[in-house]
This record gives sequence, structure tokens and C-alpha cells, in this order.
Amino acid sequence: MTIDPSQLSLEQKASLLSGRDFWSTEPLAEAGIPSIVLTDGPHGVRWQTGEPDHLGIYASHPATCFPLAVAVGSSWDPGVAARIGAAVGREARALGVSVVLGPGVNIKRSPLGGRNFEYYSEDPLLSGVLAAAHVAGMQQEGPGASVKHFAANNQETERMRVSADVDERTLREIYLPAFERVVKEAAPATVMCSYNRINGVYASHNRWLLTEVLREDWGFEGAVVSDWGAVSDRVAGVAAGLDLEMPGSGGATDAEIVAAVRDGRLSEADVDAAVRRVLALTDLPRAPSGEVDIDGHHALAREAAAEAVVLLKNDGGVLPLPADRRLAVIGAPATRPRFQGGGSSHITATRIDVALDELRVLAADRGVTVEYATGYTLSGDSDAGALRAEAVRIADASDIAIVFAGLGETEESEGFDRDSITLPAEQIALIRAVAKAAPRTVVVLSNGGVVSLEGWHDDVDAIVEGFLLGQAGGGALADVLFGVVNPSGHLAETIPLRLEDNPSWMNFPGEQGHVRYGEGVLVGYRYYVTAGVPVRYPFGHGLSYTTFETSDLETVATGPDSAVVRVRVTNSGERAGKHLVQVYVSTAAGPVRRPLRELRAFEKVELAPGETRTVEFVLDDRAFAYWDIVLGRWVVPAGDYEIQIGADAHTILAAACITLSGNDVPCPLTLDSTVGEWFAHPVVGPALQEGLRARMTPEQAAQAEDSVDMLRMVESMPMRQFTAFLGGLISDEQLEHLMALSTTTADAG
Amino acid sequence: MTIDPSQLSLEQKASLLSGRDFWSTEPLAEAGIPSIVLTDGPHGVRWQTGEPDHLGIYASHPATCFPLAVAVGSSWDPGVAARIGAAVGREARALGVSVVLGPGVNIKRSPLGGRNFEYYSEDPLLSGVLAAAHVAGMQQEGPGASVKHFAANNQETERMRVSADVDERTLREIYLPAFERVVKEAAPATVMCSYNRINGVYASHNRWLLTEVLREDWGFEGAVVSDWGAVSDRVAGVAAGLDLEMPGSGGATDAEIVAAVRDGRLSEADVDAAVRRVLALTDLPRAPSGEVDIDGHHALAREAAAEAVVLLKNDGGVLPLPADRRLAVIGAPATRPRFQGGGSSHITATRIDVALDELRVLAADRGVTVEYATGYTLSGDSDAGALRAEAVRIADASDIAIVFAGLGETEESEGFDRDSITLPAEQIALIRAVAKAAPRTVVVLSNGGVVSLEGWHDDVDAIVEGFLLGQAGGGALADVLFGVVNPSGHLAETIPLRLEDNPSWMNFPGEQGHVRYGEGVLVGYRYYVTAGVPVRYPFGHGLSYTTFETSDLETVATGPDSAVVRVRVTNSGERAGKHLVQVYVSTAAGPVRRPLRELRAFEKVELAPGETRTVEFVLDDRAFAYWDIVLGRWVVPAGDYEIQIGADAHTILAAACITLSGNDVPCPLTLDSTVGEWFAHPVVGPALQEGLRARMTPEQAAQAEDSVDMLRMVESMPMRQFTAFLGGLISDEQLEHLMALSTTTADAG
Repeated sequence: MTIDPSQLSLEQKASLLSGRDFWSTEPLAEAGIPSIVLTDGPHGVRWQTGEPDHLGIYASHPATCFPLAVAVGSSWDPGVAARIGAAVGREARALGVSVVLGPGVNIKRSPLGGRNFEYYSEDPLLSGVLAAAHVAGMQQEGPGASVKHFAANNQETERMRVSADVDERTLREIYLPAFERVVKEAAPATVMCSYNRINGVYASHNRWLLTEVLREDWGFEGAVVSDWGAVSDRVAGVAAGLDLEMPGSGGATDAEIVAAVRDGRLSEADVDAAVRRVLALTDLPRAPSGEVDIDGHHALAREAAAEAVVLLKNDGGVLPLPADRRLAVIGAPATRPRFQGGGSSHITATRIDVALDELRVLAADRGVTVEYATGYTLSGDSDAGALRAEAVRIADASDIAIVFAGLGETEESEGFDRDSITLPAEQIALIRAVAKAAPRTVVVLSNGGVVSLEGWHDDVDAIVEGFLLGQAGGGALADVLFGVVNPSGHLAETIPLRLEDNPSWMNFPGEQGHVRYGEGVLVGYRYYVTAGVPVRYPFGHGLSYTTFETSDLETVATGPDSAVVRVRVTNSGERAGKHLVQVYVSTAAGPVRRPLRELRAFEKVELAPGETRTVEFVLDDRAFAYWDIVLGRWVVPAGDYEIQIGADAHTILAAACITLSGNDVPCPLTLDSTVGEWFAHPVVGPALQEGLRARMTPEQAAQAEDSVDMLRMVESMPMRQFTAFLGGLISDEQLEHLMALSTTTADAG
Repeated sequence: MTIDPSQLSLEQKASLLSGRDFWSTEPLAEAGIPSIVLTDGPHGVRWQTGEPDHLGIYASHPATCFPLAVAVGSSWDPGVAARIGAAVGREARALGVSVVLGPGVNIKRSPLGGRNFEYYSEDPLLSGVLAAAHVAGMQQEGPGASVKHFAANNQETERMRVSADVDERTLREIYLPAFERVVKEAAPATVMCSYNRINGVYASHNRWLLTEVLREDWGFEGAVVSDWGAVSDRVAGVAAGLDLEMPGSGGATDAEIVAAVRDGRLSEADVDAAVRRVLALTDLPRAPSGEVDIDGHHALAREAAAEAVVLLKNDGGVLPLPADRRLAVIGAPATRPRFQGGGSSHITATRIDVALDELRVLAADRGVTVEYATGYTLSGDSDAGALRAEAVRIADASDIAIVFAGLGETEESEGFDRDSITLPAEQIALIRAVAKAAPRTVVVLSNGGVVSLEGWHDDVDAIVEGFLLGQAGGGALADVLFGVVNPSGHLAETIPLRLEDNPSWMNFPGEQGHVRYGEGVLVGYRYYVTAGVPVRYPFGHGLSYTTFETSDLETVATGPDSAVVRVRVTNSGERAGKHLVQVYVSTAAGPVRRPLRELRAFEKVELAPGETRTVEFVLDDRAFAYWDIVLGRWVVPAGDYEIQIGADAHTILAAACITLSGNDVPCPLTLDSTVGEWFAHPVVGPALQEGLRARMTPEQAAQAEDSVDMLRMVESMPMRQFTAFLGGLISDEQLEHLMALSTTTADAG
């Protein structure tokens, strides 16, 4: 919309900055400005025509329920994310929806996060790559995305007012990069600010976040929209860069904006900027257009879901299921699938694949018989003993038992966090009883947040983690179990041995209005590998029905802060399959504590049996950089960097080292610089040592030889104080000369 | 000194606020104001008459070196601390020293802390009780103390400028209470502010710390003195409450103070207040007086050291050493004792007990033969192989080998932190070789900071941890080994299995000018017990040559936030001994995460064989309180509190529960209070539920029955937004009424 805000009155402009109602923006008929519709998403369009709400309570129009972000994360495949994004875009366009809210790219800081099913990963690179693909895929179809929840919204507890107390290095390295990548690579129409505060300031009026970082550092040109009800101070929000308040306030906040401009508390230029960005949204498609291929989208949902399934354990190759066997299928989710989570993303599916039915279809072709027993109920209101006895009976009569287990809809949802990661005791008892009765036992899990496998892991032969696979999950699980699809999903988050092992455990979900991000950058696998804490299954873990080999790792520095990595991968088994190449970088360079390794690139490669391919990765400066809080920028320190190819974050298959000169320059020294900094300076340090040695008496020199430890004692002392200990060995003029030398070095650097 | 500051010129007053030189204050002859001397301490007087320094480098007058704080901490005996304090006071008075710097009461946040040997414990109660006893003991003899380093100075790395980023609850509950107890119970003459910053503000000009907390909250009436060289902004320091800058600045900062008053940046009243407090110090004894009983003080040093020795392990009762055996004594510290640490507390001992000599004296009476071999050197510059072979040879020919091991003076000191807790590899190899050769092996450790016992713990029969015992440590160790003294020391800090298990590990020692106290209140054992992390030896652990029993625990609430605890302890063995009764409190009450248990009282009780005593503890509100950051005060929430008697922090011998009504009052509700808060309010919650139920249609009521989970979804939503979901069930007037009700309740509470 190319209307110049100066053609509008202040009241008109203010009216555009909050919604008309729950799901649409304010039109301005006299200026020819239309209204557009925004709806919840992101794994399907939640279009409400009756009573509106943002918690998944009231009705919505049927839409394809694609695999949730937790499952897309496990696919490690941006192609999957892009195809889902495009399909959601087509369904939105057909309904005349201009903006579909999502995807959510918040980092899974704790396994307890109530909304983890809506997020991709504990790793920012993986989250960002998948989200950028989703946004690009969707926006190519017309509708705009709304990347959310910006930022540091990593819990549900007290989410409307809790302050995420987190340092800038941690924000820049862990909690912001997924947003940054989506903004830079996919230019989303909108970014949604979160409910919470960051270091005491609400995201909805956080100028540092919404303007300095988002627009000035990253170049975002779209509109910032509030999470529904997130506005705490509308006037401060406009000044900070929050363009559109949703839902509408019935005019109340429009009047606040007008009053603030009138009495000089708010610049009209800020209002104009927001108006321009909101008006640009009206260029998105508004009229319903195109037909939705419901069958095609269901098929896509099944295909995508199969890519996401993670084969955690497969002892003795019990999977894929062989022909001509007796199967005992046990557990309520086999007939009543759990495939999505509660809250704003909860949609009305167009149809639902039931795993038991899909298994029976495939079984019929293979001479496999299928018996079924409920085993347990999620609500726990039936007779557990009788259900379990029936399940054990059919397990006992089977060759292989498959137990469907996991969490119910009431156990996890938007709005609250979990307080445990254990499976319900009834299910653990059932699994153990079945495993004892059946010759072989497979457990299939459906859950949004990670569940612990302790107490039963060693009792079963195979574990298939499906997370929440969307409406075609039942079909996808059947495909993987029977080997119609060779599983290629990998964990996008760690499965710990104990909840208490998680580095956020001490501080999650905080108290009295604050949550301390005490673990800093050591989130998820970054902590487990760095601290050497054992886990049940690491980040990146996932088995296949074939085997792969990794060889010929080659790395070449292509500049002071970049490199190319090549590695050969081979399908050494007898089945086609997809192999995930995970590239980690490990370094101790620089003045900050680096995680032992960090994921810096990945690619999923399809390989026929016996096929070999060379995969190449280009690593730019960010693959080696940390955020320097003193300099306020990304720094690649000079030093050694090990490039590691991991089967998962804990298992390195190949490694090679490169040395980078980096992009850092030494800081000028002052008298407030410490003795340690003076002696460590690349130019001044040697000059200082030489100068001191030249002026020492033989006795002083001998004493200095013994003084290595004295130097350690004073290394944190400012040079200003240390000179008193030098007994006149170095003059003020000489210090001035050395400081000048350090400045020259910095300028030339 | 009762001089009125108004009798002095501004220049005169300013001159009094910084030192004359390194160790003395500025006199003002014309006003009759004398100079006083302050010297380093605190386990002995470090009085320098030649070149001055505060790092233990230049010479000082001989003084008795008493056990260091690390050892006094292990004694768990305020009587020991008081006797040491008094003796140091007498030695100071004899030299004309008015203030002895110390004791240090900083909490051992990390085992790596370079100055941990100067601090008592990882627990604030234990630290505070011992320090208060030391100060009271010393000040009774005349000289004043200087409790240090105030505050949050828990590391040496970058100590001159690092910002300890730590929340107020953690400061109030962990890092400040030892200072608070000393101030309230022992009224120290001075408090020494630390070098570091706290949440960005230097301690030396931190008004919140030096005035609001120290003086207004705690009632401190003495002077605040800077750590030597800690002043960063002298004018801001005077305004914040830093009275005396040490050492002197040659008049430079005096001129800054004068100029600041002249141009109105500093209030003259602030200067006058500082002058009054500095002048009060001149009332301390200044003239040398009294004789020092050098022999008596050495005997006291030996007695105190023996109280501090911790018997960690004693398999098969190898200790005390039996008569008529062949001993192999191995290790350099047996002949060259390591008994104090490096830095400002490093003093010139009056004499030194050598463990090997002391063992020989006791051996001679018992028909025990003693062979000695060096075994290894701390510097590593001799032939390790030959030394080890000789050690193994004498071990092989002995009945019992005693290996003296530990850290050298160069491995730990003021000024730098350690980077590892392992013993040097050469010593581990020696211990293992000796343990293989000797029938029984005892390891005696001398070290300031905790060392890991891994890699050799299971190879030896007994481990005696001496830490740093002062100049008579050699005699004390001989007394304990031969059973002349029955050991009664207990660990004042945890010995972990791995350094990485320590909760500060992720964030220690910080980077780029900041150290994040990410573990909050979960410091030391508070973390290990709460997270269920196994340790090698827990806080509070210590064995005896006799056995004790605990029975008849009785607890009675004596008010809404206080209780009395009584417990019977019996010496069930055949030797006199001292038993440490440790009282912990455990609760889940209140809105904050509480450690699983916290030490709230303790007493060391001497018991003859067969003797039983009832020990009584009075627990005041602080034994049950947490610091509430919203209310800004200590709060005892209503709830259940378990009183636990521990053999150590991990081992509970007896427990009893009391219920307290507490001292909390519910906060008034507003429309910004969350739905969760409204329903949880003790009065409003039931009224709200009742009101809603009465107004519902039968259909709504049925739906509400299913809505328990919906309530969970919206519990963090402000009531202002939730009303939209209530469909008019509750009117604005009714909400006003309920809010008024909550206010009345709060007023009446």
C-alpha cells in the first residue's frame, strides 16, 4: 500500500495500529485501506469464524494438520519444512488469510517447556534453517509468516510477565540466531513479539530488541505484531518499534497514542513508521484464491511425518517388522492418535490416520496377523489391572509386541509447563509387563516434550520416537515400522538420564517474576558434552535400517574466518536410506568459555545401497565466532578450530584441525589494563619483558627468574598499581611509549 | 576520639580519609589526632617494618601462625576461633597494631577459588558463627578487626574489576549472612570493602552495600576501609559510605574530595560522617602493651590445629596407629610442612613443627620404628623415578605407610584461581605405588583448596585431611595419627567427584568483566543434595575414633516462625570424643525454590565413653526464612518444615516435622494479578469459585467440570484478560468487591 501517512489524520493513523477485532486489522474505507486477516498456525491454518480465542478452545475451519515443529525439527530437513510451509500457505490463501502466525523458533531451554512441541530444537542453527525454509515456502504461496515469539520466551510459567534475565552473549549466540536467520534469509512479513520481559523490559516495548537488533542489526523491513494481549504500554511500544497491536483494544490504545503525540511524549515520525509497515501488510493476498488439494496435502503430511520419526533403539534388528509374524498392538494411541498439542496451534484436522488401521493394511500384504488391546487409558479412569492383563495375554501369544505410549493432551499444552519428564507410571508398568511376556517388544512414543526412557529402556528391543506427527502420523508410523520408509529422523533435543541433569534445571521456571538463564550459552547438548554429563540419547542421535560410513574429511581455510569442509559418506548397507551429516566446530580460542562443540552445518543425504557422495559445506565467520560483549560484535579469535563430523553431539566420527587468523584486533592498553593484559599483548608484552630484563641488576634478574608465580599473583592488578612493585625499573615515559605502541597495533589490525 | 568535625577545615577532614602510608592512618598533630596502624592478618599478625606490600612478598615480624580459616572452618568450633582471635589480638597489641585485617568470610563458591584457604566454608552460617567468635575474641583483647572482603569477592581472577552478577536473594541468603552475623554479634571495628564490582558497581562506591545494607539494615557503626588499592572513585566512595582509603594516595584523593565538596558534587555531611567513623578508630589501643607468651601460643596453635583435622576415611580402623609397628613415612611435606597460603596473610612463623619429628617423638614412647623417604618433590625437578622407588622400598618393608601429599605454595595463592582440583600426577602415582607395596596405607593431605581424591581413594586405607594447619600442624597431625587427640574435624566444604559437578563450574571465573552467579542459592552442598548429585565426601563429613548415637529428636514450634529442637547424643564407643550435631531445615514452603536442606544450627559436644547429653537449639525466624525480592524482606511462609539431624549434609540420622503459621501476609489482588493468583488467594479464591458456580447455567457447569486443564492453560493470564473468557459471569463490580476483600485480608494479616 503506497499511501503516504501524511495524507491521514493522527487519529486515522493511530486507528491502524491496533486490530479491528480478534483476527483482523482495522480498515480505513475513506482512504481505501482494506482489512487483512491473521490466524493462528503454523502446522495448519486455524481459521475461526465463530467465537474467537487464541488457546485452541473454540471451533475452527478444517485444515490439514501437518507434523508439528518438534517433528519437523527431528527431520533435520529444510525441504520438509519448506513443503509444509507452502502447503499451509496454499490453505491460508484459499481462505483469504493474509498472515499465518508462526513458525515458533524459541529454543527448548528446558525439557519441561510446555510449548516445546511448537518449537524445533535446543540448537539455534537447526531451528533457524528449518524455520527459514518454512517461511520461504509459505511466503512463495502468498501469505505472510509471523516468526514468533520474539524473544527469550522459553517457558509458559508466568509468561505474561516473567523477566528472562539473560546476558547479551547468550541472547546473541543461543536465543536470537534462529530469528536472525529467518529475517535475513526469508524476510518474513511479520515478527511477533512475546509476552515476557527481557532483563526487566517487556518485549512489546523493548526498543533494543525491536529496533536496534531486529531492524538496525538484521535489516528487518516487515511489521512487528504483538502476541495476542502482549501489549503492556502501547505508547512505549510504538516508540520501541511494535507496529501492530493484536487483538484490538476497542480504540483505547489508539487514543493513548494520539494523546502521547499531542503532548509530545511520542514522536509522530514513530507513528508514521509503524503505519507504513502495517500498510505494507495489506499488499499480501487478501481475497480467497486457489483450491486446496486435501488428499495431496494429507499425503504430504504422511510423507513429512515419516521423515521425522526417530528410531532410537533397534536391538537385534527387530525392526523393520518381518513378514509372517503375529503382532500384538497395545495402547490407546494406536486407535486414538495423539498428534498435536493444546493451545493456539490446535486445529481441526481434515482427517486422521489411525495407526492400528494403517498397520493392518500393511500387515495384510505381508502375512502378518494383528491383535489389539487398549492396555491403559490416559485418563486413568478404567480398571488398569484388567487392561494390563489383557495386553499381557496378547503379548504372550505374539511374536512381537508394539506398545504405543506417550503423553496425553492434558499433560502438556500452551499455557503451562510440565513438572516432570517421566511417563505415567501406569504406562511404565504396562511396558515392563508386556516386555516380560512378549518375545520382542517395540515401544512407539507420541509426546510433545521429551519423556524419560528410564525405568524401562533396557527391557525393550526397539524404541520409535514419533513426537507429534500431525494428522497422518498413524500412517507414517506404520510405514516406518514395516520398513516402507527407512527412518532418517534424528533427535533435535537431548534425552537426558535425569531431569536434574539439564543445565536449566536449577533455574527453571524461575520465581517471583524472574527466571535466571544461569547456564548461559551451555544450553542442551552444549552443556552435556562440555561438562561430560552422560545422557540417554544425545542430540543428533537417530538410527537407520541401513548403515553409513564417513571418510576423507578435508577442511581448508578460505580466509581469516571462513573454511570449506568436504567429507565422503557411503551407504554401506543393503537398503536405500538418508544419512544426516552433522558438522560441529570445537575450539578453545578467545577470551570466553566456548561449548566443547557446536553444530555449524548439516545436510541429509539420500544414498542408494553402496552409493558414495562427497558433501561440501561452506562455513562462514559465524561458524567460528562468539559474541564479544566488550566490542559489541561477532569476533573470530585467532587460533585452532577442530572441524568434527558427528554421528551425534557425543560421538565424533572424524575430525580435522584448521588454524584461522581471525578477525580480532588487540585492544589498546591503558594504565587500567591488568598486568596480565600487558604481558599477553602480542606486541607490547615482548617489548615490556625485554625492557625490564635490560634494566635489571643481576640480583633482580635472578629474583625475577623465581618470580613466575609472583607474576601470577599480580596478573589481575591494574598496571597503574603494579608500577609500585617495579621499583622504578620502568619510567612513565616508557609506559606511555608502550601504550602508544598498542594503539598503533590496534589501528593497523 | 570525640573531636567534632566542624572544628576541622575541609582539607583537614579530607586528609583523614586516606592513609598516611601503606599501613597507617594520617595523624593531625594540631588537632591532637594520632595515627593508628593496621596490618594484615588474620591467622597471625603480619607486621612489616621494612618495605611494605600486601602480597606476602617482603619481610614481616615473627608471629604465631595459627590454623588458617580453612582449618578453623573444619573445627566447627567457635571456641577454637575465639581463642585464636584472642591470641592474635594479644600479639597485635604487643606490637602496637590497632587493627588486624580479617577474618575473611567470603563463601567458597568454587573449589577453584585461589583464596579459599583464607575462608571458612561454603556455608554462610558456619562462616558467620566462626568469624563472629574470632572477632569477639580478638576485640576483647583490644585491637579491632576488619571483616573482609565485603562483598561477593569469591574469586581471584580479574578480582580488581570483575562484576559479580548476582541476584539479591542469593546475596542475602548466601553471600551476605556471614558479614551480617559478625556485624550484629561482634561489632567489628571495621569492615573491608572488596575490589570487585557487584552487579556492575564497585564495592568501594556501592551505596546500597555500604550504607543501605551494612548500616541501615544491620546497624553497623564502625568504619568501612578499602581493600588495599580498591578505590575506584574516591568521591563516589565517600558518598556511598567508604570511610578510609588504604593505602594513602599521596594526597591526590584528598584533593578530589575537597574539590567535590566545593563544587557541590559531594555533601560535607557525608565527609563529616566518614571523619567521625575514622576518628573513632583512634580509640583503639595504639601503644604497644603486654607480653606475648610465644610458647603458650604455639601450644594453642597445636591444640587448635588438632581440632581441625578431618578423618575422611579409616577402613579397618588402621588409625590411630598401633604400638610396636614399623612405620614408613613418605613425602616432602613430612619434613617441610605446608601450613599456610601465599599472599597478604603469609606471615613469618615463630617456629614450625615438623611432622616427621613429631611422629618420631610419639613413636619412641610406643615401640614404633619410623623410616622416611622423600617420595617426590613439589617442584618436580628431581628424579621422580628414583624417589618413588626408594619410597616403595621402605613401604614394602613397613607395616603401615603414611604418605604426606598435597599442594605446594606455588599451586595456590591469593591473586589467582586454580584451574584444576586434581593432585599432581606424580603424587597420585606415588600413592598408588606405595599402597600396592605397603600392607596398610594412610594418606595425610595438606592443601588450602579442596583436592580431588579420585584415582587413588580406593587404594588406601585411611585419609587424613589437614588443609593448612598453621605452624604447629606437624604436631597436631602426629597427635591425631597416634590417637593422642581423637579427631573431631568435619568438612566445611564438599569434596566432589568431579570439578564439573560443582554448580558454579559453568560460570567460574566468568569472562569479559562479568561472572554470572548462575547457580543462585544452590551453592556447595545446597546444590549437591537438591540435585541428587553424588559426591566423594559431603559437607559435614568427618570420622572419629569413637562412635556416637543420636536419639529422641524433639521439636516444638515456639511461635509463628520459631522453634526449639532437642536431641540426645551418646558416645557409644570406648574413647572420649567430640561429636558434631548438625541441624538442617528442609521445606518446600513459599514461592521460591528452596535448597533441599540448609544448615541452621550446630554444636560440637564433648562426650566421655558411654556419656549421653541432650543438646538444645533455639531456631529463630531466619532458620525458616527466604529473602523475598518482591517484599524486600525475610519471609517465613506458612507451611511444613522438617528438622533434620545430619551426620553430614547427605546423611540424615533423625527428622521431625513442625508446621509454622509464618510471618507472611497475602498480597492485595489487582486486575494485573494472574488467574492463578486469584484462585490461589486464601480468601478470594474460594469466594470467586463459589460466585462463578452460582451464576453458571447447568451446561456451563458441566463444561467447567472438564475445564480443570483450561484453568491450567490460563493460570498465568492477568485477570484483566481472563474476564473476556468468562462470558459476563462476573461483573466489574464483583471484581472490585473481591479486590477490596483481598486488601482487607492483607491489612488484617
